[in-house]
Amino acid sequence: MSNTTNQQWGGRFNEPTDAFVARFTASVQFDQRMYKQDIRGSIAHATMLEMAGVLTVEERDLIVNGLNEIQSDIEAGNFEWSIELEDVHMNIEAALTKKIGITGKKLHTGRSRNDQVATDIRLFVRDEIDLILAEITRLQQGLAELAEGEADTIMPGFTHLQTAQPVTFGHHLMAWFEMLTRDYQRFEDVRKRVNVMPLGAAALAGTTYPIQRHVTCELLGFDAPAENSLDAVSDRDFAIEFCAASSIMMMHMTRMSEELVLWTSAQFNFINLPDRFCTGSSIMPQKKNPDVPELVRGKSGRVYGHLFSLLTLMKSQPLAYNKDNQEDKEPLFDAIDTVKGCLRAFADMVPALESRKEYMREAALRGFSTATDLADYLVRKGMPFRDAHEVVGKSVAYGIESGKDLGEMTLNELQQFSDTISEDVFDVLTLEGSVAARDHVGGTAPNQVRAAVTRAKAMLAKRG
Amino acid sequence: MSNTTNQQWGGRFNEPTDAFVARFTASVQFDQRMYKQDIRGSIAHATMLEMAGVLTVEERDLIVNGLNEIQSDIEAGNFEWSIELEDVHMNIEAALTKKIGITGKKLHTGRSRNDQVATDIRLFVRDEIDLILAEITRLQQGLAELAEGEADTIMPGFTHLQTAQPVTFGHHLMAWFEMLTRDYQRFEDVRKRVNVMPLGAAALAGTTYPIQRHVTCELLGFDAPAENSLDAVSDRDFAIEFCAASSIMMMHMTRMSEELVLWTSAQFNFINLPDRFCTGSSIMPQKKNPDVPELVRGKSGRVYGHLFSLLTLMKSQPLAYNKDNQEDKEPLFDAIDTVKGCLRAFADMVPALESRKEYMREAALRGFSTATDLADYLVRKGMPFRDAHEVVGKSVAYGIESGKDLGEMTLNELQQFSDTISEDVFDVLTLEGSVAARDHVGGTAPNQVRAAVTRAKAMLAKRG
Amino acid sequence: MSNTTNQQWGGRFNEPTDAFVARFTASVQFDQRMYKQDIRGSIAHATMLEMAGVLTVEERDLIVNGLNEIQSDIEAGNFEWSIELEDVHMNIEAALTKKIGITGKKLHTGRSRNDQVATDIRLFVRDEIDLILAEITRLQQGLAELAEGEADTIMPGFTHLQTAQPVTFGHHLMAWFEMLTRDYQRFEDVRKRVNVMPLGAAALAGTTYPIQRHVTCELLGFDAPAENSLDAVSDRDFAIEFCAASSIMMMHMTRMSEELVLWTSAQFNFINLPDRFCTGSSIMPQKKNPDVPELVRGKSGRVYGHLFSLLTLMKSQPLAYNKDNQEDKEPLFDAIDTVKGCLRAFADMVPALESRKEYMREAALRGFSTATDLADYLVRKGMPFRDAHEVVGKSVAYGIESGKDLGEMTLNELQQFSDTISEDVFDVLTLEGSVAARDHVGGTAPNQVRAAVTRAKAMLAKRG
Amino acid sequence: MSNTTNQQWGGRFNEPTDAFVARFTASVQFDQRMYKQDIRGSIAHATMLEMAGVLTVEERDLIVNGLNEIQSDIEAGNFEWSIELEDVHMNIEAALTKKIGITGKKLHTGRSRNDQVATDIRLFVRDEIDLILAEITRLQQGLAELAEGEADTIMPGFTHLQTAQPVTFGHHLMAWFEMLTRDYQRFEDVRKRVNVMPLGAAALAGTTYPIQRHVTCELLGFDAPAENSLDAVSDRDFAIEFCAASSIMMMHMTRMSEELVLWTSAQFNFINLPDRFCTGSSIMPQKKNPDVPELVRGKSGRVYGHLFSLLTLMKSQPLAYNKDNQEDKEPLFDAIDTVKGCLRAFADMVPALESRKEYMREAALRGFSTATDLADYLVRKGMPFRDAHEVVGKSVAYGIESGKDLGEMTLNELQQFSDTISEDVFDVLTLEGSVAARDHVGGTAPNQVRAAVTRAKAMLAKRG
Repeated sequence: MSNTTNQQWGGRFNEPTDAFVARFTASVQFDQRMYKQDIRGSIAHATMLEMAGVLTVEERDLIVNGLNEIQSDIEAGNFEWSIELEDVHMNIEAALTKKIGITGKKLHTGRSRNDQVATDIRLFVRDEIDLILAEITRLQQGLAELAEGEADTIMPGFTHLQTAQPVTFGHHLMAWFEMLTRDYQRFEDVRKRVNVMPLGAAALAGTTYPIQRHVTCELLGFDAPAENSLDAVSDRDFAIEFCAASSIMMMHMTRMSEELVLWTSAQFNFINLPDRFCTGSSIMPQKKNPDVPELVRGKSGRVYGHLFSLLTLMKSQPLAYNKDNQEDKEPLFDAIDTVKGCLRAFADMVPALESRKEYMREAALRGFSTATDLADYLVRKGMPFRDAHEVVGKSVAYGIESGKDLGEMTLNELQQFSDTISEDVFDVLTLEGSVAARDHVGGTAPNQVRAAVTRAKAMLAKRG
Repeated sequence: MSNTTNQQWGGRFNEPTDAFVARFTASVQFDQRMYKQDIRGSIAHATMLEMAGVLTVEERDLIVNGLNEIQSDIEAGNFEWSIELEDVHMNIEAALTKKIGITGKKLHTGRSRNDQVATDIRLFVRDEIDLILAEITRLQQGLAELAEGEADTIMPGFTHLQTAQPVTFGHHLMAWFEMLTRDYQRFEDVRKRVNVMPLGAAALAGTTYPIQRHVTCELLGFDAPAENSLDAVSDRDFAIEFCAASSIMMMHMTRMSEELVLWTSAQFNFINLPDRFCTGSSIMPQKKNPDVPELVRGKSGRVYGHLFSLLTLMKSQPLAYNKDNQEDKEPLFDAIDTVKGCLRAFADMVPALESRKEYMREAALRGFSTATDLADYLVRKGMPFRDAHEVVGKSVAYGIESGKDLGEMTLNELQQFSDTISEDVFDVLTLEGSVAARDHVGGTAPNQVRAAVTRAKAMLAKRG
Repeated sequence: MSNTTNQQWGGRFNEPTDAFVARFTASVQFDQRMYKQDIRGSIAHATMLEMAGVLTVEERDLIVNGLNEIQSDIEAGNFEWSIELEDVHMNIEAALTKKIGITGKKLHTGRSRNDQVATDIRLFVRDEIDLILAEITRLQQGLAELAEGEADTIMPGFTHLQTAQPVTFGHHLMAWFEMLTRDYQRFEDVRKRVNVMPLGAAALAGTTYPIQRHVTCELLGFDAPAENSLDAVSDRDFAIEFCAASSIMMMHMTRMSEELVLWTSAQFNFINLPDRFCTGSSIMPQKKNPDVPELVRGKSGRVYGHLFSLLTLMKSQPLAYNKDNQEDKEPLFDAIDTVKGCLRAFADMVPALESRKEYMREAALRGFSTATDLADYLVRKGMPFRDAHEVVGKSVAYGIESGKDLGEMTLNELQQFSDTISEDVFDVLTLEGSVAARDHVGGTAPNQVRAAVTRAKAMLAKRG
Repeated sequence: MSNTTNQQWGGRFNEPTDAFVARFTASVQFDQRMYKQDIRGSIAHATMLEMAGVLTVEERDLIVNGLNEIQSDIEAGNFEWSIELEDVHMNIEAALTKKIGITGKKLHTGRSRNDQVATDIRLFVRDEIDLILAEITRLQQGLAELAEGEADTIMPGFTHLQTAQPVTFGHHLMAWFEMLTRDYQRFEDVRKRVNVMPLGAAALAGTTYPIQRHVTCELLGFDAPAENSLDAVSDRDFAIEFCAASSIMMMHMTRMSEELVLWTSAQFNFINLPDRFCTGSSIMPQKKNPDVPELVRGKSGRVYGHLFSLLTLMKSQPLAYNKDNQEDKEPLFDAIDTVKGCLRAFADMVPALESRKEYMREAALRGFSTATDLADYLVRKGMPFRDAHEVVGKSVAYGIESGKDLGEMTLNELQQFSDTISEDVFDVLTLEGSVAARDHVGGTAPNQVRAAVTRAKAMLAKRG
């Protein structure tokens, strides 16, 4: 049995909390991570309470100095977190009261842990989103650079993992860039809804003290105070929305990872990953495994899982605060760490990719990748598209049987299927001709890729 | 064995598709729902092809008129959808060719089903988001009206489903309003990312025809063409993001539903739902069940499920298009239908709620709901908050034992716990005094609720 | 407004159900699918009621004959389902009363829709599980046959999608077989928990009629009546557990699908899928896409989604029945259909795979797949494993640089890295030597594969 | 840059692993938790290697003693885990080699980390399942005891959270018992599939050493060796299945929690939770919050999340082992801890519940809970059920208007609705009469509850 837990609320209780229950229900093990935000929020609250006449200037200064000292203590490793004090808030408040005496007890005037924790976590998530936005930008910069250098590199483009049409490697990399641009926008959108201040909602109904919410709002850099106290203490949308944006980004990273794993296989052999991003096998001496993309691909699971964890958590909760909500933090924190780790690994690794241009080209030459070009050629000569499609289909069937790609057939062979074909067909059957011909915004032509990179860099530059 | 399926792509094939496989891989059963968007997209494409010199004016007119006739046929129920033609696109194109002859085959020039389907579904989702936004607004209007009429109605506010502090019913309803405001914003944000045009990406790499993407973009009301063809045909973010926004909204609706179910129980008895929103029991003649909120609460599951379905679908897919993506539509369509149905049911039902003010008030009088007010009173008389908390805790323990709420104790009884208490204590122990005292932005005081309603109505009015 | 819905329960209601609400809350659109089980359950119930003295023999016969006629009507397409009658149960009961008069109204004695629907759905799922078990067996039979024929075919085994060690294709196929064996067991385990009878629980508390639950239990082929009435009407575990078993099986099918897609790519080229299981492209005439495995891979999402849907549905529901539970059917039905469709497609397709042995062999020869064999060789000559690993690692590094696989190096070249290596090394560097040496239960040696196939066939034969 | 990581596999590498990558890809932070299982597996492996002639007796003894010392070191806190050594396996092996010299390097003969980790985690999960089974039994024992004492306590039974029929509290508790029985069975079923031995699969294909898998199998208490090496190293079904069984159990606990939260509310007031399982509020002195059930309800989210995390993880992975799989452990470990913690909290708390019989009875008297009994009474007097339902429905409508429950009406009042009603009606309108009449297996009658408890206790006794 734990005897001290009830110091903050024990007046009406007959017996102390069961020791296992105290541990089971405590959150300080994980919410201590928000100590900086908790102290920042308390300093703003104390500052406002003085302006509102609830604290004297001296009381405010005592509190602010005490809190600053506590932050130093924590950062110096001189702070003992106590499970019996349940959470980061009560640990810090108890330390404050120990440090400055009875005045410390006045800090909690006009607020409750319900609005306090909601404020802390929003400050925390806002800070982390800013780090994530910066890391997305770093990865995008690496991609844009790499794409620029690979604007002329030809590889097979795939649909259904079957060779479809030649594309440029730079174009493929810019497809990844586009995914990340949407991720960036989504995190920006989440940030808007994170940056609303619950403080002042108190337990659920607001407070009878003459608080000035615009003051704390401005001190803490929030866009606005929350409009409704019941909503303010029970809203966890921003945590779910953060995990949704993160899940979509992790999904993107599984797609990139899948491609990196494919491309480093002996069968594709399109790229080389530097050794420092790979590991080997304890039993097979020849192995060099693409661990980083594999692990990132696997880590999608935990972020998806956290999203569903939070959606489940909030399902069917009546207003306002319920203890269930304590379970919001660990999934959110782990989602943040995972997203940051994966972005860092990719931002470090992607610019170090080396393309194996000869293997890419070789692969593009096989698989009838210019079949569409042949069809388009026939259409330009007046054949309806669907008929041209049929002609080319038959040429391909012949090619499979005879072991020849379209560009390897003689004019005679090609003319078996349509006498519309003449000598100029070989211009459209080259890889360079094929990619250069897709010359419009969004197309794979090298000059379009270079133009896209230019636009991309301008956009990144504006993010500042 | 099906003999006709391969008319669009069968040139290289030796045997027809297996009949079960044809059915298993077809999508026309569910994607025919997008016929309007498919036709609209094709008309824009044909219009552009004429401007680009690929079609003559006569060809374009033939196509446009043919497509318009097909739309009329479909809407009149005179169109036979064929599984063998796989999907909505090939069904419509085949009908067109049947109607206008060989010119119909030219429509597909410069595009592929990959960019076509991506365009159709974005047009479809955009239309549906607009309907959803309107329905959210209708529900919010109903809430604001109701809240205004209930600004003075006092009920117990709960945390942990334990009586916490008195609140006004209008304030509680405005908490729901706030949730929906965030939902509205999220759907607006999704709409931005939906409204980008894939058309022109063709199969994956762009096209060799001189297409003019800004023309189709404008004709179809898109904000911009997609920047990268590989990304354009493989991106399904908008579907996931739609389901994420929908899941959060459904989560909100489970919370409202949970409260409606609680409030209609004999134990709470806070509201009455009109009979027309309830059903009975085949065995228990006295039953009147709150079916609508229960069902809405249950329907959260399907929307959460669809979100997870789509996140799973896209995991680890290499670029560009894969057949897996065909599985994006059914979850998305069902999410749309569910969200619209639930919104409609709530927008109809919520304004018809009748509060049972006497039961709400009665409940607020019990449960020591003014305990915080007593503590605040003591603080105003100079006691530190934590000590006041202890005094009130002991008064409550006494109350439980003696069966009296705080407001029912005599002054003598109260003074047992602190002689700071004097006659004026009874002002703060009334429900009206308690709610009126929480008089700041976001607080539960009736005049704050009225002010919040005024702001809410102004905001809704701007949505236009 | 709908006037007739309340015929079964409307006594206490003042106004009819809202028309939209009637549609929104009805289930007959999807639960009519259980008509056979509903009628079967009703016949058993009527039979028991007669034995218990609640119905006369004549009444029972009237009911049983009436129900049989209704079943014929439904199967002949001569039955009109009515939304106003809400669900399959009330549609059939109303038809019965219309057919046989007042006696029809007696059928519902001693039961409620709550235990009736729970009984119907268990009967339905039990039937479907039996079909699924048979289809898993069919697929496993195909796999065992194929594996037997491919017991000697050598391919590269992969870890991290990097060439690891040579394996036999038959061994790989038997890995798939093992996954399916666990799936089979899981569906058997689910079936045990499905096959428990809710009937007799009535609305939630049991009934005051002298019902004989062992009678209906035996008539319906259940293993036992449910032990507790409250649990019986609120338990949906079996639906969740069915979806969990299905999700794991679909996960297995994504792994097989992923490999099929890889193996049919131009880069791997390990197998050929017959044309009848593939489709082409509307724009790229050369394409032959592995649609079936891609689609199966994509369909994993919907089954995962349904699992999550049901887990969400049941979260936080108080006992006993709530309307939310009506949402259990659609996810469950779609999971059933998806699992059956995917199994059918695979059971048809897998035996028709053609291996391209020369490409598999060629790939195994590259990638240093016998590196572990060289290390084991050194260990047998007395070197500690970790040192042997180092020697081979260096040989591989040399091989990468010089473009030679281990088996292509001269003895001199190999001896650079260790003089322990002598002429006999070339025996272990052959593919055949490598696979044959892994000769223990579970190993890849051809004779082990054949032994595994023999055990597998014996096991399948016992399933009867 | 980390210089030492490549000692186990670095032969072919040109540059050391990037320091961040080393940390990002290491697993020792969380997999050290399996040190006992890792050592146990290694001892069995060494024992077998000696029997197979691969190790001498002296080598085996050196290894076994060394491993036992390492276990003591770890348990005494004298072991330094190193990130550079990646995982628990390489940390222990390196320590062994440091302790006993070159012989330590021989332990890894004939195995790989791929089969080693798969073996460790199965041993770990098996141990944890046994603890979970014991804890479920303890909770069920508590429930059976409590139910026995509450076999005669009458409370309202609910459907749709509306008063339905009177039930006994003991009956309700036994519904919980039934849920847990299924959970127990599911964990037993999972255990069967966990208890299969991967060891011997080596990296993926088996090993060339003359291993004796039946020996290690017996030493480690596995039921059988895995049948296929590729499957053995890539199978994570058991982890998913464990999380599925855990999710269903957590879902059950959300339902119990929901009811506990409802019942402790002022509105229901059906039970009292001892103070030691509750906590208070920092701002509202009167609060006593049911933290334990709320938190357990919230914790369902994390277990659901882990299930989906693992399903996502395994989706689309080609065989055999991929680095992604390293992500299996943290979700699994957290699911284990959560399930054990929640079971412990409930097994401690549930037997300490105090029912408030007078409030339960009072609630059952209201809400027309005996309406079905009145209908059954009319049926027994010859009225068809559907007509009786109508009569009672009208009586209830009258009761709502006049403020009287059925048992409070006079005979005259009741006869307004049917003259079939006579004086004996009042027997069936008592609560005791109502529950006693549901007297069949599974029914709520007190003697049925007692019989169910007797069967339950006999079943628990057999679990041994």
